[in-house]
Amino acid sequence: MATVRLLDDDELSAQAQAVFADIRATRENDYVNNFWRALAHDPATLARTWERIKAIMAAGALDPKVKEMIYIAVSVAHGCPYCVHSHTAGARAKGMTDAEYAELLAVIGMASETNRLVTALGVPIDETFQAR
Amino acid sequence: MATVRLLDDDELSAQAQAVFADIRATRENDYVNNFWRALAHDPATLARTWERIKAIMAAGALDPKVKEMIYIAVSVAHGCPYCVHSHTAGARAKGMTDAEYAELLAVIGMASETNRLVTALGVPIDETFQAR
Amino acid sequence: MATVRLLDDDELSAQAQAVFADIRATRENDYVNNFWRALAHDPATLARTWERIKAIMAAGALDPKVKEMIYIAVSVAHGCPYCVHSHTAGARAKGMTDAEYAELLAVIGMASETNRLVTALGVPIDETFQAR
Amino acid sequence: MATVRLLDDDELSAQAQAVFADIRATRENDYVNNFWRALAHDPATLARTWERIKAIMAAGALDPKVKEMIYIAVSVAHGCPYCVHSHTAGARAKGMTDAEYAELLAVIGMASETNRLVTALGVPIDETFQAR
Amino acid sequence: MATVRLLDDDELSAQAQAVFADIRATRENDYVNNFWRALAHDPATLARTWERIKAIMAAGALDPKVKEMIYIAVSVAHGCPYCVHSHTAGARAKGMTDAEYAELLAVIGMASETNRLVTALGVPIDETFQAR
Amino acid sequence: MATVRLLDDDELSAQAQAVFADIRATRENDYVNNFWRALAHDPATLARTWERIKAIMAAGALDPKVKEMIYIAVSVAHGCPYCVHSHTAGARAKGMTDAEYAELLAVIGMASETNRLVTALGVPIDETFQAR
Repeated sequence: MATVRLLDDDELSAQAQAVFADIRATRENDYVNNFWRALAHDPATLARTWERIKAIMAAGALDPKVKEMIYIAVSVAHGCPYCVHSHTAGARAKGMTDAEYAELLAVIGMASETNRLVTALGVPIDETFQAR
Repeated sequence: MATVRLLDDDELSAQAQAVFADIRATRENDYVNNFWRALAHDPATLARTWERIKAIMAAGALDPKVKEMIYIAVSVAHGCPYCVHSHTAGARAKGMTDAEYAELLAVIGMASETNRLVTALGVPIDETFQAR
Repeated sequence: MATVRLLDDDELSAQAQAVFADIRATRENDYVNNFWRALAHDPATLARTWERIKAIMAAGALDPKVKEMIYIAVSVAHGCPYCVHSHTAGARAKGMTDAEYAELLAVIGMASETNRLVTALGVPIDETFQAR
Repeated sequence: MATVRLLDDDELSAQAQAVFADIRATRENDYVNNFWRALAHDPATLARTWERIKAIMAAGALDPKVKEMIYIAVSVAHGCPYCVHSHTAGARAKGMTDAEYAELLAVIGMASETNRLVTALGVPIDETFQAR
Repeated sequence: MATVRLLDDDELSAQAQAVFADIRATRENDYVNNFWRALAHDPATLARTWERIKAIMAAGALDPKVKEMIYIAVSVAHGCPYCVHSHTAGARAKGMTDAEYAELLAVIGMASETNRLVTALGVPIDETFQAR
Repeated sequence: MATVRLLDDDELSAQAQAVFADIRATRENDYVNNFWRALAHDPATLARTWERIKAIMAAGALDPKVKEMIYIAVSVAHGCPYCVHSHTAGARAKGMTDAEYAELLAVIGMASETNRLVTALGVPIDETFQAR
């Protein structure tokens, strides 16, 4: 169930091998998930995507766990089951509790409902919400 | 630019007046934004929506500021400009810094890109991401 | 605010004029809305789109009012403000009451919320829901 | 294929058991589908979601069958296969005929096409479609 | 995994048989894919959909291969895995190279990211982008 | 109508000034559109986004005009009016003819319709569409 074949470790180009090694070292985990095995057909895109995601998802002004929860929210709204599964696993690995997960789902559900009510009603943007 | 007329304070039913009073008291702010003025045509829905959003967006396992950021993420992915504007204002009012906002945008952008790459590639869900 | 100029009646090709005449006759209304004025740059597409929409939205197994409400639901979920406004007007013109509109919004909101909860939870399809 | 384990009847909390009993009584059917078994990890959300959906989908100004068809339309546009399958089964159980289903699909398809044409053309909303 | 049963060749109506014959002749391939077997329950819709897709996807101002790539882009953004798989196969059958596919994915990813950044920032449309 | 203020040339940081200079030089046009003026609050993101878009949208295996058309298709499906307007202008600037634009719209419309029919019908992916 894919439009490209998932590559095994022994099928990787040298550039892709280096990326896989960095994924393993960064995560301290030998498992490399299917997304990277699909992207590995294009080693330049693989490398660029991994570098960006590593930088963006690292600790910064926001906690990595919060970033994973935001990632889940976007993935749910975009209808990407793979992304939902992988980032839910990621958020849990970074410490998301059951209580936090329940609140995440409640916010996603509430936002989805009001997003569509607002669109149905054609509500005009309040002047006060505009940047000055 | 709306499919229903926005109601002024003096056009509200008694039930809607009570909801508006609670919105003002809860937010400690006299301003009631357009979404509620559009919903007020149906006082039961107005009341139910406000009660739910007040409960869900309150402090819990997650910080209210984080909840607003998750709300923004969903609203962006659903393409709801009103919701994006109102919850960006809400997140700022609850203390979202410029650095946090920049990281929020970076995560939303990254998730949007990889969501679509995953869909394009048809990546199958790894067994390890399944709940046991 | 358009990517093509909206055509006035005196700028139409002969084929587009015939379509506009049929829109006016079918609706028993002289007003031709902006969608058709944008499509009129490509008279063949204009004609084909009007013929299909006229056939599909006519009375059949489903009431034209119900069809307009389904059209609103799709347009809301796709985030098309123009479509939401035009089909809300259309549904009202075909007799949608305030009570029906309130229920339509409630179903759209509920579906939006549960759609996203289901996606977040990755719920597998029950065997019983599969066609036999 | 889920981000949470589906709960069996003997794993439910007392609150969840009560909701399952009401689902069975309301539907006059012993089968409880997977969505509720996934939601049951959070009994408060389970109870609230079931109460709302029971109220919203009941007979009112709109026929329950029509409500199921609107639910299908939203679920299709949001790309939720589970929701599409469960509500198509629901609509059929409430009497949707093959002819009604064919017209539902035709309206969904037509709306999807014109929604995107309108967005591509950036058609401005006609003054006449605005609420007064 | 479908809401309708896929029809075998010996279950087709005469009108559906004629459409299947034309699909086979046009593609010079005996295989008829599942989409058509699902649509075949409604022979009129089957016929109309096939006629339109045959006309629209044929060579014209745009190369059929480019049309398939545009189809993939839309299907990815709409979250339709079936459509993504079938049109990726179609684009390859029409000569899409690995290099073209890699660039297609890069454009889809970039557009997805900037689409959401633009929505998050609420960027107003430049006057110069409006049709005159 | 924005969640951040659009920056004028005299408000830019040194890094942002350099990006604007490169945008002007690359496009051989003094006009810098609003997207970049909104992104300029975060010069690092501005620079990274511009570098990527410049590289991805350049001539390669695919013609820059075709890339702009793919960008339009994604932007339409994501419901981003700004993006639709800016990339339609971009495609025209790169030589998209009226005939090509008409075919682009036809493919987007067709794909949107069939994407949703496929989702409604729950069509399973044909074995032959899977990568080997």
